Amino acid sequence: MKLSQLGEFGLIENAKDTFKSLNKNIVVGIGDDCAAIKPRKGFLLIATTDALIEGIHFKFYYTKPYQLGIKSIYVNLSDIAAMGGIPRYALLSIAVPPSFSVKFMDEFLKGVKEGAQKYKVSVIGGNISSSPPTLLPPQVGEEKGGVFFINITLLGEIEKKYMVLRRGAKIGDKIFVTGWLGDSAAGMKMLKSGQWSVVSGQRRKLVNRHLVPIPRLAEGRFLAVKGLATSMIDISDGLASDIRRLCEESGVGANISIKNIPISKELKDFTSSQLKTHNSKLITSIDFALYGGEDYEILFTVRPENVAKLMGLWKGMKIPITMIGEITKKGINIINKNGKTAPLQREGYNHFSL
Amino acid sequence: MKLSQLGEFGLIENAKDTFKSLNKNIVVGIGDDCAAIKPRKGFLLIATTDALIEGIHFKFYYTKPYQLGIKSIYVNLSDIAAMGGIPRYALLSIAVPPSFSVKFMDEFLKGVKEGAQKYKVSVIGGNISSSPPTLLPPQVGEEKGGVFFINITLLGEIEKKYMVLRRGAKIGDKIFVTGWLGDSAAGMKMLKSGQWSVVSGQRRKLVNRHLVPIPRLAEGRFLAVKGLATSMIDISDGLASDIRRLCEESGVGANISIKNIPISKELKDFTSSQLKTHNSKLITSIDFALYGGEDYEILFTVRPENVAKLMGLWKGMKIPITMIGEITKKGINIINKNGKTAPLQREGYNHFSL
Repeated sequence: MKLSQLGEFGLIENAKDTFKSLNKNIVVGIGDDCAAIKPRKGFLLIATTDALIEGIHFKFYYTKPYQLGIKSIYVNLSDIAAMGGIPRYALLSIAVPPSFSVKFMDEFLKGVKEGAQKYKVSVIGGNISSSPPTLLPPQVGEEKGGVFFINITLLGEIEKKYMVLRRGAKIGDKIFVTGWLGDSAAGMKMLKSGQWSVVSGQRRKLVNRHLVPIPRLAEGRFLAVKGLATSMIDISDGLASDIRRLCEESGVGANISIKNIPISKELKDFTSSQLKTHNSKLITSIDFALYGGEDYEILFTVRPENVAKLMGLWKGMKIPITMIGEITKKGINIINKNGKTAPLQREGYNHFSL
Repeated sequence: MKLSQLGEFGLIENAKDTFKSLNKNIVVGIGDDCAAIKPRKGFLLIATTDALIEGIHFKFYYTKPYQLGIKSIYVNLSDIAAMGGIPRYALLSIAVPPSFSVKFMDEFLKGVKEGAQKYKVSVIGGNISSSPPTLLPPQVGEEKGGVFFINITLLGEIEKKYMVLRRGAKIGDKIFVTGWLGDSAAGMKMLKSGQWSVVSGQRRKLVNRHLVPIPRLAEGRFLAVKGLATSMIDISDGLASDIRRLCEESGVGANISIKNIPISKELKDFTSSQLKTHNSKLITSIDFALYGGEDYEILFTVRPENVAKLMGLWKGMKIPITMIGEITKKGINIINKNGKTAPLQREGYNHFSL
């Protein structure tokens, strides 16, 4: 059945059923002009909004609607993580071509629901609109007719004393990242090249890091509550862009040591195998890490005197952290493997680059 | 200059400058992973999200970017109005083709800013993304290259005791609307027919009602604070659809009296002049009112014993209210000009109708 046969009323009824919630702080959920919630006493309300657009952020020939539903929640959760916050409520706005199937929409909403439930987020409202037609030919596995557009607004809570901003980095602070950088961009490259259907084992991990990037909520919250991070940002456009954003907000610079950037075994194996089979247009692991984007790891800074304490406290955490550099007075520099320092010239992903 | 020459960093800096705010409850504004606000003590937080999409909700050959900026705020304010709330904060998410000009974006943001300032709303965050190309040929006056997409999430505050939902209508309640219905749809028809460039005087009013629909914030708030409305909804998809939504949520029916539906002098003149010049595909004023949509008037219900009190209290208000029917046990019926009752068959605007 096509969405055009179900109609807008039917679609909204489906969504209401899907996102029923028992959270007692939700006074009004889906189905009125606004949602209404009871803010938690003593907490600030934090809010972030992020879009995923077919043809820009994903293509259906390698993304299942279910995965897309999860990812659309997770990329917003990553912003909550990077403040040290607790995610609570989501508003989902979608634009979908009427030619898409009801099955497609059900699977997408199932993904949104599961992604939200996993982190105790309630979908409290939203909007559904039709999307204009395009004349672009659909790819294999794609629905035909237009652009699928998702916008999610995530609301969360945080105690003011725990909140960590981009602007708190000071000269001498050590720079850390959670997890591993570059996996997502390598996974996307694999997906776009069509290798996705045959990837398995460790390569599958890179692909999954792109399709369903896990938000670092526990890690961001831990850093905030322990008072150890002086600044935080999530890496959405690649380390090169996001270290620049953090430094600009803090009015400082940074030296990043290439040899310390955490690269997963899977990414190393992938780039070295690429080396063997192709000779032109090589992308190194470090290129993926610096310029790739969509890692959704947390980049943060710590006073040098707190580094030992941090490393001790971190022992119980699942995801490793790695020190990759130091905050300086100004300029973003890269220290290469030979110890040579050079300004970082390129940026990561830019929606409006030439 | 094209957006692709300014780049994403430049665009965000522009938006930060445009939306600087001095509201002391904004702890973190534009430029971090999340915005952070201090919720007002004793108030619920209300939230709504709404999209405006080129080719679905508007076309650039008759909409100026400045008007679109205002409207994108106003359609969300209308949802806040329909709960009886006080609007506070906005998050703006846009997707724009890189080929669009910086001037276009400046004018759009100017509209958003003015629309927000007029109702004391602060833009506290957002997102900017590129939009995929289309092969659709641009119309006269349109920027070339893709679809412009806007999503706004509006946050507001309301005292729980004052909040008015869709679900409170009871059998015997009288049904009211603010203002006049059908103007916006007639204005849109005029715009689409290309008459927009020569319209003036009273016809200009219809066009303006479509391009910049004034949210009924003062009216919704007044009804809520006085405790006179048992249910409220804003009319976004036409009276036919929105009375149905209100009745479904309330578990009731309605009789709507055609002769009481408030039609502006401008709309009457427009439809009677249409009558003279064309003979086929006539649309009456009542058709525009029932099925047109985008009026953003408030539809509400009042206990019969409170009608006299309401009419007395309303005397100081700028926008009139009109009683158009009564809540019944079930079924949505129309009482036509001869007093004959018939079920309302058609719906208003539906994004996914066949």
